[in-house]
This record gives sequence, structure tokens and C-alpha cells, in this order.
Amino acid sequence: MNGLMQDWPLLCHRIIDHAAINHGNRKVISRSVEGPIVETTYAEIRARALKVAQRLTRDGVRPGDRVATLAWNTGRHLEAWYGILGCGAVYHTLNPRLYPEQIAYIANHAEDRVMMADISFVPLLESLAPKLPTVERTILLTDKANMPKTSLKNAVAYEEWIGEVDGDFRWAGLDENSAAGMCYTSGTTGNPKGVLYSHRSNVLHALGGNSAEMLGLNSHSVMMPVVPMFHANGWSIPFTAPMAGATLVMPGPKMDGASIFEMLDRYQVTATAGVPTVWFMLLAYLEESGKKLEHLERVIVGGSACPRAMTKTFQEKYGVEVSHAWGMTEMSPLGSTCAITPEVAHLSGDERLDLQEKQGRAPFLVEMKITDDAGKEIPWDGKTFGRLKVRGPAIARSYYKAEGGNVLDDEGYFDTNDVATIDEHGYMRITDRSKDVIKSGGEWISSIDLENLAVGHPSVAEAAVIGVPHPKWDERPLLVVVAKPGQQPDKAEILKFMEGKIAKWWMPDDIAFVKEIPHTATGKIQKTTLREQFRGYRLPTAD
Amino acid sequence: MNGLMQDWPLLCHRIIDHAAINHGNRKVISRSVEGPIVETTYAEIRARALKVAQRLTRDGVRPGDRVATLAWNTGRHLEAWYGILGCGAVYHTLNPRLYPEQIAYIANHAEDRVMMADISFVPLLESLAPKLPTVERTILLTDKANMPKTSLKNAVAYEEWIGEVDGDFRWAGLDENSAAGMCYTSGTTGNPKGVLYSHRSNVLHALGGNSAEMLGLNSHSVMMPVVPMFHANGWSIPFTAPMAGATLVMPGPKMDGASIFEMLDRYQVTATAGVPTVWFMLLAYLEESGKKLEHLERVIVGGSACPRAMTKTFQEKYGVEVSHAWGMTEMSPLGSTCAITPEVAHLSGDERLDLQEKQGRAPFLVEMKITDDAGKEIPWDGKTFGRLKVRGPAIARSYYKAEGGNVLDDEGYFDTNDVATIDEHGYMRITDRSKDVIKSGGEWISSIDLENLAVGHPSVAEAAVIGVPHPKWDERPLLVVVAKPGQQPDKAEILKFMEGKIAKWWMPDDIAFVKEIPHTATGKIQKTTLREQFRGYRLPTAD
Repeated sequence: MNGLMQDWPLLCHRIIDHAAINHGNRKVISRSVEGPIVETTYAEIRARALKVAQRLTRDGVRPGDRVATLAWNTGRHLEAWYGILGCGAVYHTLNPRLYPEQIAYIANHAEDRVMMADISFVPLLESLAPKLPTVERTILLTDKANMPKTSLKNAVAYEEWIGEVDGDFRWAGLDENSAAGMCYTSGTTGNPKGVLYSHRSNVLHALGGNSAEMLGLNSHSVMMPVVPMFHANGWSIPFTAPMAGATLVMPGPKMDGASIFEMLDRYQVTATAGVPTVWFMLLAYLEESGKKLEHLERVIVGGSACPRAMTKTFQEKYGVEVSHAWGMTEMSPLGSTCAITPEVAHLSGDERLDLQEKQGRAPFLVEMKITDDAGKEIPWDGKTFGRLKVRGPAIARSYYKAEGGNVLDDEGYFDTNDVATIDEHGYMRITDRSKDVIKSGGEWISSIDLENLAVGHPSVAEAAVIGVPHPKWDERPLLVVVAKPGQQPDKAEILKFMEGKIAKWWMPDDIAFVKEIPHTATGKIQKTTLREQFRGYRLPTAD
Repeated sequence: MNGLMQDWPLLCHRIIDHAAINHGNRKVISRSVEGPIVETTYAEIRARALKVAQRLTRDGVRPGDRVATLAWNTGRHLEAWYGILGCGAVYHTLNPRLYPEQIAYIANHAEDRVMMADISFVPLLESLAPKLPTVERTILLTDKANMPKTSLKNAVAYEEWIGEVDGDFRWAGLDENSAAGMCYTSGTTGNPKGVLYSHRSNVLHALGGNSAEMLGLNSHSVMMPVVPMFHANGWSIPFTAPMAGATLVMPGPKMDGASIFEMLDRYQVTATAGVPTVWFMLLAYLEESGKKLEHLERVIVGGSACPRAMTKTFQEKYGVEVSHAWGMTEMSPLGSTCAITPEVAHLSGDERLDLQEKQGRAPFLVEMKITDDAGKEIPWDGKTFGRLKVRGPAIARSYYKAEGGNVLDDEGYFDTNDVATIDEHGYMRITDRSKDVIKSGGEWISSIDLENLAVGHPSVAEAAVIGVPHPKWDERPLLVVVAKPGQQPDKAEILKFMEGKIAKWWMPDDIAFVKEIPHTATGKIQKTTLREQFRGYRLPTAD
């Protein structure tokens, strides 16, 4: 027997409808790509998104078609986002920071029909044009006055393009499982893979994302997403902020410390979100300028682990609470935040910072488990670590065009390829990538923990740990070290430094000194290359 | 093209799973029907709910079957609630305050197979037993020691009943549109009608209900629902509290001021919810005892309009913020709360109280409109009033067994049968019931506004306003008055008192003095009877 409640599909454009009706005058403030700071409202964003939807439809874009955006965070990008999904098409955010060949690969794989891009990306797009056969036209997110000369196919200024329609348009009537958005994972190995969000998954994710211990936005919040909309579904802020009626401050293309500070200060931002790199730049700017964060209450740090010193500085020096968060493109993306529950509310000082190094707890709509290699669940004791797997309505069940094949286990959980512990209060901590963990005699050793410890030695510039085959233990850790200029540390000295700070059986079996450690384009250690480099390496303990 | 996200149906039992896993030790504290205050946790609630589900299944209860509860707010009732829905059956909360014949009508209409009841309702159930042929057995929510002697069919003590199973049970795998719960509307006319909630509607409603400007619960909240679980889906608190990991304090059968105060004070309740009647009792107790509300931050007042004086007293004397809320059984039930947005945050004193008399704003997942009788939308100007209609995924599309026929308009909106204004910021104010509004020359006059004004006259004990046929204006207002004992006000005196306080054309055309005004069982003015009483009444202005 079914319930007798209304059929009201979860469609993303209902979010901007809600914002326009109930928070219509709330502002969306952007640093434009052209330069000036411009202000609009949710009511206007919706009105113009309707024009985008109407114009795309008139241009022959059909439900399910992919429309790419290559743009910074601005009000126009937000209009494009809702306009694309609102005509039934799929917003496909491209990351301009990828190598041009990767961008071309991704746009071709997605078969993007239309490109909506900031004027600053015209040279990039012109160089890519011959490699983008599916792209029929380019809409440049600007007006006539700022329209650059370009050889791009059917290029038009956004303002002129939407100026030709009247906005008298009804959002597409869609099944809630229809695709709404798309974002590719960069991936350290293999080709990028596309994650295809549905209207349902985005709406559910935003509802969960606005719960008190996740983003918890309300109509008094002033939120600045420094994280770009092309990074992991924009951390869902394009949905959570209008759903809550929060004021949006969009930093546009300028991510340097002074520019970020200017927006935070001038618009009295209360909450902001981004990766550690931008906060390093902000903190450096504050340090050198002596400025204070008068209005900011909370900074959400994700994308990679938030360094303890950063948390300490934000909280103790600037009075800004840090919310350590974790997620994945495949998770829409919010997976956890390190909110303080009653069980740990008594912690202070270093103990509180210890806790805040964890990636935190799962909201409703995210189920977590940690398993051994055989898929057997392991205990939540804060010590035992295993493969982190997740399940929920806003988590991928497969990639676009079935790249990577089946990615779910028998119980429907997605393998994050992270290795983590979860403590008795549900706080999860990422300890490694699963392909990097060292498997010694059936027990796992975290390469990241060893690296973090080794770089604490005064003569070590950089450290990487990989597993090397061992006749008895399967694998044992090899520590690869780059010494600081002018330093010549020896093995015994480094090992002595590490001793007693980790379990005895975690101690590296050997240390190799190298001139440099290979890195990916985004600065991560390329362990595949490193393992290749040390193939056949014989540990002294192997005899 | 569909998205590629996981199939994770929105099932209510996932909420108690989440609470047990992520907030397992958070307490549920109840004043038991037997007397003592008892404590349990979400982990235990879930473990025992699994036993309820297992035992119901063993007893032959099948998905879709209705299982009635007749019980106060306690942890056991919460276990029963999740156990029933978790085996695929439908929790059907019966209101013990209805007339026995109404209870029998409702249980028969729903065809309840099992009755789970507090021991205090044994006499009522015994008297009703011959009229409840569908009920196969009664589970009394108590243990062996407190089990009363009873003639009820197959009666058993709950603790013994679940004691016979081991809890090794998997929740039913269900489609999210499956029925999960049922609640009948009392209705001032006609038979009670059943609202049938789905798993999906309850989960979505709870997600929306926990947004910051609705209940906004978190793991630090200590929530006491004084509103009974049998009143309009328990205002969804049985879902929102465990979803947020809030501590639950359950008042059991004692709703008097002293008992409510004891729970609020002893368990440091931060938020509570209920109808004005219970707050009158609490405020009277505080007044006479001189006690203070040390921990309470917020009281959510709904069910009927929150009197201005109550808001003022809570806020100004006790420092407790009042959230005026509105909803309906048919809306799961939350429809609006009067949260303060930035646009009105500058209001203070009387202006703030004016605002707080409004029922407030719609959350995401509730769409509102106001229309004239022809269904045409009228403006949101805070003055024009019309029929209030609502749409959303947790709003009824029809009643059980199609009672009342089609209840949606062409656009899928449900007619609340309330008449309301909505202002430019989205604040809605109920001005009347649509059947009570007086339609004078195409314009509407609020009977409630006239009544509220008339009772302000020092000689008037009670007032009711009904529309009486008029040859020129269709209808004109007749004010029906019960004078205070010993007082003999005359018409002119009362009319003079009202003059200038309302629009001239709102002034009643006549006043009739009566000894008493008819009331429903729940204390509301029975306007149908009153209209019957004044049928054929000829207004002096009709000549």
C-alpha cells in the first residue's frame, strides 16, 4: 500500500524558485571577471536563469544534452548553472586548471554541445577549438562592451544572447532521476571519469548539506564559496545557499589573500569554504598586513586534509571556527564534517585540535563502513583502519559510460579508495589512500603517518613511503627521503628520530635518499612512478 | 538521460539507524505511564524497535497493515512507531481525547489489526472492544509487573511480547512511496478523514523540518515534544530529533504546569513544542511558583494561533524565544514558522510582536499561494486575503479510501480551508477558516478579527461572528455575544467600542445576545451549529 502524498519531484530548479519567492531580495555579490564587483539578487538570478533555459531550448539544446561551463564563481555562472539544468540539460563544469589535453578529453567524452565560458579563457578555448568537435557554439559570460574578438565558433556575448528572449518560460517538467549535472574526477591514474548527478541527488544532498552540523546555512548567513563551482559540484553551495536564503559572495577569478580578504571584510562574510591552499594565502596576507577577520565565524576546509597549524591559527589567532570537511566528487560531494558533538564538547587545547584533525562524522544520507581487503567490516575503535566505503542517495553508483566498470560492493557501497579509522563516536580519519597503504603480515601501515613523522626531522625536506615486496611480510615500508639543501642525514639518525613515536612494526625497513620525488600536476606525490622507480628494490631485512 | 547516483530509497527506519550508529548514546528520557522517569538511548530504541518489527511479522502483520497506537509520548511509543513502520506496516496514532465513538469510527475505517496502548487506556479500550472487530490483539505498553487484568482480546504486556524474539531482524525492504503512517483529521464537519504518510514524505519532511529556520535541531539540542505523537504526526519530532541526534525528553501522560516544568528544568531542555493550552498551564505554574526557565531557549507554538500575550511573556519575562508555527495533519504537518529574516531583524518591541503574530514562512518543500474563490492568485501584500493553498512532497494528495474526493486544484495545490494574507517577505497570517469568512459584496471579512476585537469589550465574555444572507451584499456579519455574568451591554455600546478599529464596511450589521455559544469537543466554536441556530435571521440592514 502506497502513501497518499503529493507527487512533487525533487528538481533542482525548485531551489532557485524557493529562493526567488522567499528570499527574493537577498543578494548575490560577485567579483566579475571583467573587474568590478557587481550585485544581483536571487529573484534576478532566477529571472535570468529562465532566459538561459529559454534560449538554450531555442538553440536546440534538448533534455540530457551536456552544456559545459568553464568559469569562475560569479552570479552569471550561477544563472547559467540553473538555466542549463532548468531546461533539462546537464551542467558540466570544466576545471580550467587541468592540462589542456585533459580538458579536451573530458569535453569530448561528455560530448558537450555548448560551451559557456569566462572571457579570460578565450585563448585556452581557441587553442583547444580544433580538438572540440562536439561544441557547436560558445557563449562568453560577458556583455557586448567587454566581448573580445575571437575565432571561436558561433561565439556570442551572454548578455546579448539572453537579451533575445523574454524569459517567459516554464522549467522543464522532468523525472527527478533525470541527470542535472556532471563533474569529472581528476584521478591520479587512468583517464578522468564522469560523475553524473541527478536532480534528486542534488536536492537531497542540499537538504542534508544544510543540516545543522554540515553547512547549516540560514537566511542570515553570508556565504563565500572560494571553492570553485567546477570543483566537486561546487561543494553543493550553489544549491545549499539559495535553499537557505543565504547571501552569496562570489570571489570570481581572484583567489589571492588580499582579494579574498577584501570580499570577506567588505561584505561581512560569516562562512566560507575552500581548500587549504587558499587559506595559506589568506593567512599569509593577514600575517603581513596585520588585518583581522571581524565578521567571519566559520571556515570550512576540505579538498585535502586541513593542517593542524592552520586550524590552530584560525581559531586561536583569528577567532574563526574551523570545520574540517571531507568529501568526493562521487559524493556530490559532502561526506563528513568534524562537528563537535556533546561527547567531545569537553575537549580543549591540544585534545580539541587532535579531534579536529579528523575528517569527522557522516550526516544523515551518508552511510559509512570500513572493511578489510576481504570486505569484512572492522570495528569503530579509532585505531583499526580499513577501506572506507560509503552509501547514500547522492553517491555515485557508476561513472559515465560505465568507465571503471562496477564500483559498488555487494551491499551497494562505493569504495572511496581511502583508508580510514572511525572512532566510537563516529569520527572518521583518513589515514591513507588504499593503493598506498603498506600491507605487512596482514596488518596495514599508513604511508601518510610515516611521511608526516619523517618530515618532522630537521634535515628532511620531503618524504614518501611506499611498500616494497618482502618474502616474509608481503610488504614492508621503504622511506624515500629528499634531504634539505646542505644537509646529509644518515639512516640511523632518521630512524632513531622516528623510534618510539610509532609502533615498532611500523618502522621503515630501509631509507633511500633521492634528489627529488615525482609529483602530479596538482602537486601530489606520484607514488605509482615512485613504485616503478623502486621496482625490484631489495630490502636489507629480506635476507 | 538519468543520473548515475545510488538507489537509496528514503525509508523512515534509516533515521533510527542513523541515530543508533552516529548518536547511539544520546538519551531518550521519558516520564513513564507507570510513574517513574526512565532513560534509554537511540541505540536501545533501535534494538527494541527491531524486536517490535520482528514480533509483528511473526504475529502475521504484513506490509501495509495498520497497527494502531493509543499512547502518550514515551520511549516505548517511539520504539513501537519505528518497529511498526520498520516491518512495513503503518503506524496509526489514535487520539485518546476524541469521543469514544470517533475513536471507534477511525479504527474501523483504518481497519487496524493490532492495538498498542498505554495501560491507562484499558478501561476505554474495554468499553470500545465490541465496536472494534478488526483489532486482533492488544499490546499494552508495560511490563509483566504492571500488567493490568483485562478482558481485552489476546492482551499481552509489551515487554513480554518483545521478550520472545531476539531482534535478529532486517528492516523491510520497501519502495519509498510505501505507506508508513496514518493520522486522521478531526474535522469540525463530516467524518474524520485519514492522511496516509509515505516513507518518502516523512523522510523529506524531516530533512526540511531540521533546516535552520524550522526546528533546526542538532546533537546539542534537548527537545521535549509536549505535543503528543498522536497529534498531527507528532509534528515530525519522532523523525527530526533522531535524525539530528537531539536528546529527547518525553513528558508521558502529565501535561500540567508543574510536571512540564519538572522535565524542562531537570533535563535542561533547550527546545520544546506544543499547543497554546499547555503553555497557558506552564506560564500559570511559573507565575504562582516564581520559578524560572533556566535552560529553555525556544518554544515552538502551533496547533492554534499563539496569543500575543503568550509570546510577550515567554520572551520578555522568561527569555525564551517563541517560534510561532503552523501546519496541518495533511502537511506532515509543518507548514511554516515565524523565523526572523534579515528584512525584519530590525523590528523590536510591539512591531516584533506584530510580526510574531503571523504564522510565518514556508520552508523549502512547501509552496504556498493565496487565491480568490475563482482560484486566481492574489498579491502578497500583507493585506489582501484569500484561500491558502499548499503544494509539496509531504502534503496530502487525497484522503484514505478517497474520502472527500479530489482535494487538489488544477495546479496540484491542496486547499487548506484557511484564509490568509502573505506579506512581501513571505510571512503568512491566518485570518480565518474559509467557511467562516464573511463574503460581503465580493470582499472578504475575517470573522476571527471581529471576534478578537469584540472580546476586548469589558462586558463581553465570548463572541462569535457569522455571515448572514443579505439582499444587497450577499452576506453581512452578525456578531453573537455572551455577556459577562451580571453585565448587560447594549448593541450601540459594543458597536461604538469597535468603531474606528476596523474598516467601516467590516462593522457587524447586528448583534445578537445569547446565553451560550456552541463548542466542539476540543473547545472550538461550532459555527455550523451557530449558523443553523441563526438560519433565517433577518438583519435590520436587509430592509
